Amino acid sequence: MKIAVLPGDGIGTEIVAEAVKVLEVLDLKFEMESALVGGAAYEAHGHPLPEATLKLAKEADAVLFGAVGDWKYDKLDRPLRPEQAILGLRKNLGLFANFRPAICYEQLVGASSLKPELISGLDILIIRELTGDIYFGQPRGRRVATDGHFPGAEEAFDTMRYSRPEVERIAHVAFQAARKRSKRVTSVDKANVLETFQFWKDIVTEVGKEYPDVELDHMYVDNAAMQLVRAPKKFDVVVTGNMFGDILSDEASMLTGSIGMLPSASLNSSNQGLYEPSHGSAPDIAGKGVANPLATILSAAMMLRFSLNQEAAAQRIEAAVQKVLAQGLRTPDIWSEGTTKVGTAQMGDAVVQAL
Amino acid sequence: MKIAVLPGDGIGTEIVAEAVKVLEVLDLKFEMESALVGGAAYEAHGHPLPEATLKLAKEADAVLFGAVGDWKYDKLDRPLRPEQAILGLRKNLGLFANFRPAICYEQLVGASSLKPELISGLDILIIRELTGDIYFGQPRGRRVATDGHFPGAEEAFDTMRYSRPEVERIAHVAFQAARKRSKRVTSVDKANVLETFQFWKDIVTEVGKEYPDVELDHMYVDNAAMQLVRAPKKFDVVVTGNMFGDILSDEASMLTGSIGMLPSASLNSSNQGLYEPSHGSAPDIAGKGVANPLATILSAAMMLRFSLNQEAAAQRIEAAVQKVLAQGLRTPDIWSEGTTKVGTAQMGDAVVQAL
Ligand SMILES: CC(C)[C@H](C(=O)O)[C@@H](O)C(=O)O
Ligand SMILES: CC(C)[C@H](C(=O)O)[C@@H](O)C(=O)O
Repeated sequence: MKIAVLPGDGIGTEIVAEAVKVLEVLDLKFEMESALVGGAAYEAHGHPLPEATLKLAKEADAVLFGAVGDWKYDKLDRPLRPEQAILGLRKNLGLFANFRPAICYEQLVGASSLKPELISGLDILIIRELTGDIYFGQPRGRRVATDGHFPGAEEAFDTMRYSRPEVERIAHVAFQAARKRSKRVTSVDKANVLETFQFWKDIVTEVGKEYPDVELDHMYVDNAAMQLVRAPKKFDVVVTGNMFGDILSDEASMLTGSIGMLPSASLNSSNQGLYEPSHGSAPDIAGKGVANPLATILSAAMMLRFSLNQEAAAQRIEAAVQKVLAQGLRTPDIWSEGTTKVGTAQMGDAVVQAL
Repeated sequence: MKIAVLPGDGIGTEIVAEAVKVLEVLDLKFEMESALVGGAAYEAHGHPLPEATLKLAKEADAVLFGAVGDWKYDKLDRPLRPEQAILGLRKNLGLFANFRPAICYEQLVGASSLKPELISGLDILIIRELTGDIYFGQPRGRRVATDGHFPGAEEAFDTMRYSRPEVERIAHVAFQAARKRSKRVTSVDKANVLETFQFWKDIVTEVGKEYPDVELDHMYVDNAAMQLVRAPKKFDVVVTGNMFGDILSDEASMLTGSIGMLPSASLNSSNQGLYEPSHGSAPDIAGKGVANPLATILSAAMMLRFSLNQEAAAQRIEAAVQKVLAQGLRTPDIWSEGTTKVGTAQMGDAVVQAL
């Protein structure tokens, strides 16, 4: 089995190095091969997702991804910006199902903006559709408006869209995930305004009939953004489109106060997947050895579980992470009075030790 | 001067009655005329926004609006559902600028999900563009997909769009509002993915050059959804499009924990406006006399300020609301140990008394 290792930019290289350390001590039979992606790839090859990197990712069973992006690339044309690498990988590998858990670790409950009683025990799984919606819909661009409020004016536009099979497959993913948890799915839409999401809601409802053991409810996206703040523990599995999922999964992960702990997985229909931390490339702290590698290490665990069929190894990593937290080790982002502040490499070493 | 009074559904009639009481004791020279809207109008006339209601609203200087909607209308065809009334009013009156303050009242700081130190003193003004974007963009509908992942499959689609003058005018509104506050604007976009919001960002930046005294920054919508939870007080004026504004303004108002206190205003270019509470029609508590009328009373104050040129009267109402809070009066939604629980009418009477 083969893992493509794409560290990317900013803290990406530092945190991925720790996850690789952890994978290496497991003594499993897989090959790892690294390649440049994002700004680093642009610097070296003039493109954020060079052909060779894409080829490696496609051939691998799984991609371990760090993070991409830096302010310094903001002035580049959009197709050359680091984020395009991640969009390109999602599209080319067909990674339509994004899993973003928002879990509150008991020891870190104090890091949340929310009152402890609202957040303690939080365990939400946001399932975001990742290859459709307004992210990829054509046509898009600039033109002269022919109707609307200002005909004749310059305008820009994008197309939101979902086809029936796209909604069906992500709905199945959500219901199946719910079966392994508390058997509840909340589908988030904006059916009161958008044709696309009336269609979404209708299809999710239809697919739900095949899962009579799973309770399905529907919520408008504006209400979901509110309820996540008011009573996050009422959610279990949340399924939504690409755009709403982008917003809600980030909101949900920030509820815990420790986004440095949250992994993510993006899968295609053959369980090939891309695994990355929920946080970004944090250029402000890059190179300082203070980034939290745990989200990336936990992403590696998800990779073992979903793409490499190594459930036992995944659980070993997760237990090791729990253990270093119990030992009181904390990178600066999750540090609090009475715990021990450690750097990126020390944290990685501690996980290796705990294994 | 004329006010169109549209109470609507659910608690709408109860809370608007209290705001009308308050307006009446001010002894100002204006006429008020009521009409049905939403589900109530559908029941009586077969349409959520009857011609007569629209005509009244158009002719008035301002519209005082309660709330619309009830589960029982969910099965109606979209054009007949109560929410269409509010979309129709926005469109027909050209109410492009929506003001949604998220203010934390000191006495109610405990009602927030967030820790008191994060929320105390919160005073954000979200300015949401209200007549453009994917809410109204054409074309939209269902069809057979000719490209994308599943050509030949049934699909639904909507069009996101903004024209230059639409972005310019809302940007001016935001910069002008910021001049009266702390001179900071955060423009929220998704320029890394959407053509529409790259255009938005470019134009807001251009308009910003005309306001060198106002500090402008840009934030992606996913990041904004996170930062509202992490450090809401870092925001002052936030300007964004219709769809993102829908989500972020609801998230922001829930941060305070007392959405029953938050008014809103939607204005067109002649300062004609629609004023309504930020919360909805709450069918579950309708008719029980327990709804909080303060958001609607404060919306009436905004109406006096923005559309009726009665700043002094607006301030009197706001002071009266502060006074009843100081007296310890609370409707059930904001009640806490040690304060006095009152109903909708008692709360309205107390504001009248305080005037
Ligand atoms: C970088 C950006 C294109 C991306 C997205 O919007 O999907 C990011 O926000 C994410 O959620 O992975
Ligand atoms: C009822 C609905 C159409 C409306 C919207 O999405 O604008 C509401 O959520 C709001 O924010 O006023």
